[in-house]
Order: sequence, then C-alpha cells, then structure tokens
Amino acid sequence: MRIGVLTGGGDCPGLNAVIRSVVRTAGVHYGSEVIGFRDGWRGLLENRSTPLDVAAVDGLLTRGGTTLGSARVAPEKLHAGIDEMRATLDQHGIDVLIPIGGEGTLTAAHVLSEAGVPVVGIPKTIDNDIDGTDLTFGFDTAVSIATELIDRLHTTAESHQRVLLVEVMGRHAGWIALHAGLAAGAHLTLVPEEPFDVDEVVRLVCERFARGDSHVIGVVAEGAMPLPGTMAFREGGIDEFGHRRFSGVAQQLGEELERRTGKEVRATVLGHVQRGGTPTSFDRVLATRFGLHATTAAHEGHHGQMVALRGTEIELVPLARAVARLKTVTPARLAETRAFTG
Amino acid sequence: MRIGVLTGGGDCPGLNAVIRSVVRTAGVHYGSEVIGFRDGWRGLLENRSTPLDVAAVDGLLTRGGTTLGSARVAPEKLHAGIDEMRATLDQHGIDVLIPIGGEGTLTAAHVLSEAGVPVVGIPKTIDNDIDGTDLTFGFDTAVSIATELIDRLHTTAESHQRVLLVEVMGRHAGWIALHAGLAAGAHLTLVPEEPFDVDEVVRLVCERFARGDSHVIGVVAEGAMPLPGTMAFREGGIDEFGHRRFSGVAQQLGEELERRTGKEVRATVLGHVQRGGTPTSFDRVLATRFGLHATTAAHEGHHGQMVALRGTEIELVPLARAVARLKTVTPARLAETRAFTG
Amino acid sequence: MRIGVLTGGGDCPGLNAVIRSVVRTAGVHYGSEVIGFRDGWRGLLENRSTPLDVAAVDGLLTRGGTTLGSARVAPEKLHAGIDEMRATLDQHGIDVLIPIGGEGTLTAAHVLSEAGVPVVGIPKTIDNDIDGTDLTFGFDTAVSIATELIDRLHTTAESHQRVLLVEVMGRHAGWIALHAGLAAGAHLTLVPEEPFDVDEVVRLVCERFARGDSHVIGVVAEGAMPLPGTMAFREGGIDEFGHRRFSGVAQQLGEELERRTGKEVRATVLGHVQRGGTPTSFDRVLATRFGLHATTAAHEGHHGQMVALRGTEIELVPLARAVARLKTVTPARLAETRAFTG
Amino acid sequence: MRIGVLTGGGDCPGLNAVIRSVVRTAGVHYGSEVIGFRDGWRGLLENRSTPLDVAAVDGLLTRGGTTLGSARVAPEKLHAGIDEMRATLDQHGIDVLIPIGGEGTLTAAHVLSEAGVPVVGIPKTIDNDIDGTDLTFGFDTAVSIATELIDRLHTTAESHQRVLLVEVMGRHAGWIALHAGLAAGAHLTLVPEEPFDVDEVVRLVCERFARGDSHVIGVVAEGAMPLPGTMAFREGGIDEFGHRRFSGVAQQLGEELERRTGKEVRATVLGHVQRGGTPTSFDRVLATRFGLHATTAAHEGHHGQMVALRGTEIELVPLARAVARLKTVTPARLAETRAFTG
Repeated sequence: MRIGVLTGGGDCPGLNAVIRSVVRTAGVHYGSEVIGFRDGWRGLLENRSTPLDVAAVDGLLTRGGTTLGSARVAPEKLHAGIDEMRATLDQHGIDVLIPIGGEGTLTAAHVLSEAGVPVVGIPKTIDNDIDGTDLTFGFDTAVSIATELIDRLHTTAESHQRVLLVEVMGRHAGWIALHAGLAAGAHLTLVPEEPFDVDEVVRLVCERFARGDSHVIGVVAEGAMPLPGTMAFREGGIDEFGHRRFSGVAQQLGEELERRTGKEVRATVLGHVQRGGTPTSFDRVLATRFGLHATTAAHEGHHGQMVALRGTEIELVPLARAVARLKTVTPARLAETRAFTG
Repeated sequence: MRIGVLTGGGDCPGLNAVIRSVVRTAGVHYGSEVIGFRDGWRGLLENRSTPLDVAAVDGLLTRGGTTLGSARVAPEKLHAGIDEMRATLDQHGIDVLIPIGGEGTLTAAHVLSEAGVPVVGIPKTIDNDIDGTDLTFGFDTAVSIATELIDRLHTTAESHQRVLLVEVMGRHAGWIALHAGLAAGAHLTLVPEEPFDVDEVVRLVCERFARGDSHVIGVVAEGAMPLPGTMAFREGGIDEFGHRRFSGVAQQLGEELERRTGKEVRATVLGHVQRGGTPTSFDRVLATRFGLHATTAAHEGHHGQMVALRGTEIELVPLARAVARLKTVTPARLAETRAFTG
Repeated sequence: MRIGVLTGGGDCPGLNAVIRSVVRTAGVHYGSEVIGFRDGWRGLLENRSTPLDVAAVDGLLTRGGTTLGSARVAPEKLHAGIDEMRATLDQHGIDVLIPIGGEGTLTAAHVLSEAGVPVVGIPKTIDNDIDGTDLTFGFDTAVSIATELIDRLHTTAESHQRVLLVEVMGRHAGWIALHAGLAAGAHLTLVPEEPFDVDEVVRLVCERFARGDSHVIGVVAEGAMPLPGTMAFREGGIDEFGHRRFSGVAQQLGEELERRTGKEVRATVLGHVQRGGTPTSFDRVLATRFGLHATTAAHEGHHGQMVALRGTEIELVPLARAVARLKTVTPARLAETRAFTG
Repeated sequence: MRIGVLTGGGDCPGLNAVIRSVVRTAGVHYGSEVIGFRDGWRGLLENRSTPLDVAAVDGLLTRGGTTLGSARVAPEKLHAGIDEMRATLDQHGIDVLIPIGGEGTLTAAHVLSEAGVPVVGIPKTIDNDIDGTDLTFGFDTAVSIATELIDRLHTTAESHQRVLLVEVMGRHAGWIALHAGLAAGAHLTLVPEEPFDVDEVVRLVCERFARGDSHVIGVVAEGAMPLPGTMAFREGGIDEFGHRRFSGVAQQLGEELERRTGKEVRATVLGHVQRGGTPTSFDRVLATRFGLHATTAAHEGHHGQMVALRGTEIELVPLARAVARLKTVTPARLAETRAFTG
C-alpha cells in the first residue's frame, strides 16, 4: 500500500513525531511505502513530494517543526484545486492520504473525502480547539512553555509590586490560557469565550494590593476581548483564512489598568516560542499514538475518519463531526478557576 | 464545615498543589476550615495536626514534596487503630476527611469509610496504577523527567556504540516505562506485566548493531523480570507493606547482555529524581482539579468516593472500585510499542 | 558585628542567593547579625528594615527575585538623602553596609563610601555591563533563557521560511545578544555598540534564502540602533534614571525587512522572562561566592570595594573603578561572531 | 590549508559545537578544508576519516555527543603508533591537527607535537581537571544537570526525613561535587582531594536532625574516599588507562550512615546523564570560542599549544604545561563551602 502524508497550518510540536510514527508503522509493521507532500496542501496542488522511509525519519521524534514544511492555502484555492490534488495522488499511486492539521486542514480533508478520496485525518492544534478529541498534541507543550515562563514572571512581579499580563495563544478558544493560568497560579484568566468586564479587573487588582498582596499575574488569551463599552478597544479584524488578527489585547488592557489603578503594569506576549521546539513527553506519546492508529485505520479501510483521544484510548471519529464546530472552553471549566482567582 | 486532609505513601509531585487546592476551595469558595494531619495516617493515630488557611498554602502550587509530610504505616496497624483515628477526627470536629494517596492509603480510606467515617479520596501514584481514573498526578512529571534524561543518554550511547539500560519506577505496573520508552524513542521496553525473554533481547541488540545502528537504549521498569529459566536472576522479595523490593533488574540484565553480546552495556537507575521537584503543568492542573472536586464532593455529601479523571472531566468513583484491582499495562498498549522497537 | 544589606535596581536571578550567602556567612562563620533594608535605598531613606537570620533565608538559594524588594530611586534623591541614610544606619548600629546592585546602586554606594560609610558592594546586572568583574550573576540565567527560547524558534522559522527577530535585554551593552546569538546559532546579532546597516541586513537575509537556507534568526539587543540614514527609526528616549527607553527596535527592523525583502518577518520581545525565576547553577555559585567574599571583606575591614570575579577567583576592586565606565562589547568579541553569521 | 580534527576520550556536551566551530571558521573565514578522523586516535591509527564541510556540521551546535565518534586507546598503543598516525596525516595532506580531548588526548597531542606534527589542542573534560584553563566546556552542563536533579531530591528527602547521598562525576577532582553542592544547597560535599572522616559525617547528620532539620543532602564525588580506618571501604582499583574504577562510594557510605545514625539513607548515582544531551548556553559559547581560536592559531602557526579560557579571553598555553599536572580543588575553594555545610 502507498500512504501519502502532509502537514498543514501553523507549526506545532509533535508534527515530526507523527510523521515518524506514520512512516515506521507503515514501513515496519505493514511493509507499506510513504510519500510526503511538501508545504501542506500546496504539495498536492503543485505536485511536490519526497519519499519517506524509516531512515528518513530517524531523529524526528524529538525535533520541533515539520520536516515536510507547511503553508496556509486559502479555502477557495483548495476547493478549486480538488482535481489537481486528485491527479497528484493518482500519479503517485497513493491509496490513502493522511493529512495532519487543524480545522482548516481537516475541513479540506473532509471535502476530499466527500469527493471520494480515501482519507484518515490527524488533528493538530496548539489551541486544543478541535472537537471530537479530548486533546491534541502540541497543546501540552504550549501550556508547559507558558507555565514555565509565567513561573519566572512571578518573582519579578513580586519584587517590584507589579501587575504582569501575559498574552498566550488562543484566538477562538481559551484552553491554553485556562490551563497555564491554573498551572502557574495566575490571579486572573481572560479567555475569548467570555468577554471581560474591565471594571471587575480593576477591582480585583486594587483588592489584591489593598490586602497586601505583592503582585498580580494575569493570563490573557490573544482572542480575549472586553465587554463592549467597558473600555476603548481596537479589534484585530479577520484575515483571509477567517482567523482573527492580532489585537494586542494584553497591551491594551495593560495601558487601561495602569491608567485606572496607578500601578505599574507590564504586558508580555509569549508569541511563537509556544509553538516551537521539542515536544513534551506527553505530546510525543500522543503524536506517536495518533500516527500509529491513523496508519492502522488507513490499512484497515476506515476512511473519512479522524483519530481522536478519548480517555486513554485512541478512537476514530467521522471527519464531518470533527469540523462541525470549534471546541471552546465550557462555563463549567471557567467556573473551576474561580477559587484560584484574586 | 471542617475538612481534614492528609498525604500518605511515597513522595509525588503535585501533592502540595492538591493541598493548596483543597484549602483554597474550602476557604475561598465554601468558607470552611481545613486541618492537615501530619505524616499520613500517623498524624491521625498520634493526633498531630496543623490548621491550614489560604496564607499557609501560598506558594505550594509549584513546590514538590508534601508540606504535611508522609510516612508509611503497615496495614495491620491501621486496622488496629481505627478507633484512635476516629477519636482524633472527632476531637478536631472533622466533618469529612480527604486522604490523598495510593493503593495503601485509599484502601485504608475505604476501611474508614466502611466504618462510617465520611471520606473523599484523592488518588496519587507516580506509577499510574490506580484503577478507575485515566491518570493520576505525578505520573506525567515522572515520565517527563525520565524522558529528558533518556534524551541525554541517546547521544552518549551513540558516540560510544553502547547499550544503555535505564531503570525507571514501576514495581507492579509498567506505565512509566511504556510512556517514557515511547516518548524517548527507546529500542526496547520491559515491563512487569510481561516477563522478558533474554534470548530475544540479545537478538534485538545484535541485530541493531549488525545493521549498523549506533546504539541501543532500553527502558526497564524496576519490576520487570525475565522469563523463568532464561537467565539467572535474584529477585528483590516483598517488603512489610506488600511492595516488591529493589531487584536491580537493569544491572542484572546489563551484565547478562554484556556477557552474551560482547558489547559495552551500562545500567542507569533513575531512582528518586522521578518523584521530586516541581510538577509539570499537566500535573499541576490535574492536582488542582482533583483538590477542587474532592472538596466540592465533601461539601455536597458524596462520601466513600474517589475523584477520578475520565476523559476531560473529573468524576467520582466508589473507593471500593478503585482499590479492587491494580491498573496494569494492557496487551494492546504493549503492542503499540512494537512498531517502534528494534 | 552588624551588617546591613539591601538590593537595588531591577530584578535579577541570584539576588536571593546572595542575601542567603551574606546571612549564612555572617551568622554561621562570624557570629554577626544582619539587617535587611527594604526596597533598595528607599529602605534606608524611610527606615524600613527586617532582621535576617539563618532561618529567614532558608530556601532562598533557588528562588528568583529578591525577598527584600527593590525599587529605583532617582540619583538626586539619593544625594539629598545621605544624612537620612546615615541616620538609619546609625540607629540600627550597622558596622558595614553591603548594597547589591547595578551601576546606579554601586554609584550610590561609592558616594556613601566617600562620605565615610563603610561599604562593600556586590555587582548585579543582567546585562553584564559592570566594569571590573569578568561576569555578574543573573547574566548566565538571562542568556540561558534567551538561548532556550531561540532554540524553540528555530524549528518554527524553519517550517515556515521566515525571518525571526528576537529582542533580548541590553540597553547599553550587547552581551546578552552576543552570547545568546553564539549559543543559539543566530545568523545575525545586533548590539548597541555597533549601529547596524539595514542594507547589509537586507543583503544577508536575501543571500540566505537565495542559497536555499530555510530561515533567518536574528538576535537584537533592545538598545541596538540603525546607522543614521539607513532607515526611519523612532528612538525610545531617556528616562529619569538616565536609562534608554524601550524603542521596539526588533519590531521596527522587522517591518522594514518585510517591506524590503518580501519575506515573512516576525519579531519576538523576550522581555521580563529573562529576569525572573530560579538562577542557573552557574549564577547560584557566583552569587553565593560573591556574598561570602563580600561578608568576609566586611569583617576584615576592606571597605569602599566591590567583589569581582577575575578568572576563577573572587577579588576586590575599588568601587571608584567599577563605576568609572560601562563594560561594553569589544570589537574583538564582535568579530568572533563573523564566522557564524549569515 | 587542510585541518584535521578528532575527538578523544569520554563523551562531553559541546564536542559537536567545537567541531562545527572549527569547520565554520576554517571554511567561512579561511577557505580551508577540514577532515574529521573517526573514533579518536583510532581514526588516525586505522586511517578512517570523513571530510567535513559547512553543510556537514549544520545543526551540530545544540547536539550532544560527537558526530566523529570517540574511543579510548591505551597510551602504549599510541606511542607505538606515531608513525602510522603521521602517515595518515601525510596521506590526507593535513597541515595542522586539532585534537579535542582530556588529559589522555592532550598528552598524546603533546607527544605528537614533540615528534614534529603541528598540533593545536582543545581541552575537554566534564570534570574540569585540566590545568592551564579556567574552565572547560561540558563542566557547566554537568553541574547544571546535577543541580537540577539535586533540586528535585530536596523535596523528596524533606517529605520523608531522609539522608540522600548523590554521587556525581569526578574521579580525581571534585569540581562537579563542589559546584553542584554549592548550587543545590547541599549540606555536605565530599571530594577526592580530601578524604572524609566518617565520624564527622555521622555527627553532622545527627546534629541536623537533632535541631529539627527535615533532611540531609550530601553530594559525593565518585572519587571521594574515607580517611583510612574510619570505615570499611572497598576501593574500585585502577583500569588500563590509569583511571580509577567505580567504587560506589555513595552506596558504601550510605550503608554505613544508615547503620550508625538509624536514619533512612538513600544513594543515587547520577551517572551518564551528566555527560549527554544538549550543552548549556555557557558551554556552547565556550566550545564555539575554543574552536574558533584553535582554528585561528592553526592558521597563524601557533603549534604545540592548547586554547584556554583565562578570565574572559581565550589564550594559548603550551601543551606541555597543560598536561604537567591535574587541576584539583584547592583548600581555599573547599573552605568556601564551610559556611554552607551542616
């Protein structure tokens, strides 16, 4: 059998571990061949590929990034290019395609699957916002890095009686902010799912200092926004892929807080460091298991599906279900942070 | 309401995070008081305690170890001491006791519960062998540390054409070995659940070097044992708490391999470094959520239960079920490692 | 004998380790007492202090920040307050004062010393720009953190064919940029000591992509500036303490590069994470030795001096010399980076 | 010009960074060629080599181990093989040889140099025991790893009222023990330079527990030994390369302490994890500068020398001086630990 593999969307620790797992499972266990397509869907559209054997994936388990490259393609280009993609797959004799990616990539995978191409998807998102799976690889690494950095900021804030706002990834879903906030003992966690009331934030900050606390650490998801009318706010807008643009919410909130509380406020944007480098052991295991089970599903003829973590097991869920909605932070999970706020 | 809390058994990253979470949830959310008993069940037997308020748990989230201390008590002493323990609880006006611990602690908790004491247990085990919960805190930290150290050993083994055996924790269950082996790209993973055939290990080592590979890394759970008759082996025996004693399996296997393959073999025992220090962000979140939900269950009258992770949710399972059997590595999970072996 | 200690200026990993070392050396070795003044020179001006014994510094070795607090005071306030400071010292019966701080703090220490107060200074600067000592604690930690984060950015830049500019600390001296750039394999290092020619940067970026390299990582000290006339540049100005203000050089250069090379460019500002958290082992040893030798010098009557690392030894240098000039990156050290550029 | 390079002796983080630096400096700066000899001196004896260009060393900066391999050769074989080695060098047209290694490798380099071969040595030793240089790369990484692991052990020892002995590298010199002991706040540091008095160790342990301290951490260099007559001790003997064999001093001392103090004592042997994996930023900078300056010296005709760190500068010292004696821990440096002991 011949398997095609590609990685789409933004960078995510664990992508290389998935590629290695697909190649080893296909090669060692099934005696199948694997072709990697370069730069996501573009590799299919432009017929750029590379054969991947066990030697080619040596050392990939621990390496960040994706050895296949990745690039974003606008949805309409993908829709228009289905015939070219199919032609590329036919030319290489690909029996099943395994696209690894986020919402955009999996939606494209679903469209291809509906068009009759055998596909098994692997969910990938730093933000953990893909539905149908408990978790995705990359998320644990992102939370770990954010937590480690916030741990470092605590002491600085403490020594100088400051408010420190840390902007983490999460345009549409606040999972990273939620987990890093809990893990690092933040006094305030702001997520896209619940617009924040600036008056309440001001009150919380003032109360902490009033009762003698030395500092305030707030974790702010990049997609968090104020309740309309509570502060002036410049939104970031929407880009060509339907993604929210950078608004600099932590910076904007920081200036507002400094003005209204009289305290020194600093905003730190963690940015791309959350997406790079070697994955945590958790993400390496998850990525490896995803690759293994997707390759098994490919060989057993379970197409149009996506691998998913459910409890401790890897299961299959229909692509249609995975892309139907974004998995956002629930009110119950947000409520959990209350006892640790302020 | 007055809540009692104690930590039993061996050290585990996240214990302090649980204590903090119980105290903050009780204090901030319910306005309840918390009393900590010192050195596990001994604190109840000997009436040694300390009040815990929000200020007392400041900074505990990131700190390893347990601020309450821990000690092992032989099961028969616990059974004989139920009346003393109850007397201590009554004297302090404890409404619900929250013991945090492993199999031994939860078994004692179950006995107390059967004897009418309101109890909500919190599972704790580095080894991840408590049934009824997907995972326990401390496990991710232990796997992370083991993985990081095995990452380091790869390059040393590579440069010197060596076999390196790394002995990790896991007397009765091989979860740490399984996960660290997958995460660190071990060529061999040995667990207690499946006695290993030394002849096969010898063959795997010889095959790797024969085809030009530079080194072999094996991860060996401390409770792994050879198939009877395949090599001379000194077992470690069983201690007074029913735990298997240290056998030095990696060292013994290493000597056998060196003799039979002619290759340089080194055994490294990771030991207590797997149990100490600051928890990973994953374990901090899990420990915090366990503490929160156990305290909520205590206030809502759900006794005789243990908090458990099921998928992404924290649920309650009867203590009786949690202690009925050990959760060991399944054949299916072991089979997953095959594509990555050799 | 009674020793006074205070920490001035910005946060720096190792401050607490120095405090612990001073207290342990004074207490255990000399049987002397130590008084800590709060929030830097303000503690002397406003007579706010706390006694420090061995128990009080337990656990400080590994903790970031400063348990004494720190605050900046404008130079003219210090000069005007010499009598108040002397009165505070007399009131507490302080025989020798050990101020721990950077250029500003040591200049004030020098002024006090000239005014007859027995003083032994301890140099502290993340930026490593104090003259007379090979290194200062905090610098190694800052370089380590920056390096670790740049390591992570490499894979992200690689997968997406990007230029990533990383802005690190260093307003007047480029030591962090120089070392982190060497350690992390940056393709470009920009420091305050040598204004950069934007045309050359553009050429370097274009050449790398032209010959097939996957990405460009540039490390930019926050005080780096373009050669006048090579690009539009908004300077940050100078604050009330004589420090250069934030100019956002990486962001400004990034926009210029994106415009002129057509490549995707991202700027990351590491910010305060470089100053916080547990010190590296190198900085813990250096901080501990500084504290030990300063306390010894205090007891042996060597006043008006600063401890300094010279090779492997801790020596004393006159405060007058230490504050005479800033230690900046030499042309020879900059030349060393050439073989690793581009 | 043609440069030969080889790595001898045990593994050491930074070896690959040196190789990369030599190749980049030779190639980019001087337009020279570099040939790598495999497995240390064996590569010269057996004429096994590989050309190294800039592409070949891509990515080596951060990678542990040595891409050239390393092997130990008994001194008499080296002496007997000088003609073969010279023949290999002539055959490849090597103008200058740059051997990277410890005492054994540098001694061989000195012999070759005396025999008329142009040689520039680069010192390498985890143990930091090469004379003539302030520090060697690999040492900082080893101390960092040991410190990080001892940090983890503190909390475990604390929670269980234990004595934990940590055996670190250092057969003839106690630098790692000294630095890791200072950095991690050990209560006891034992080095090869000063035989320890078991009675004093017993006293220190008992005193700590008597005054209510929760635990004792001791750092023990693998070459530490008891004062004759103070306890039964099995020495490890000397191997064919003149190196002391493993004695298991921590384990032996641990058993003695447990017997005499009645406290629970655990010994942990850190072993090879101290030698592997990615180097710290400090070691990457030092390794890179060593490679750069050795290559420059090779091109400028400064032979028979070794590069050395002196203060902040890289200088040249005669090989003869570097191998004349081992650099061991001085009484003054040992005395520094006293204020932090017990």
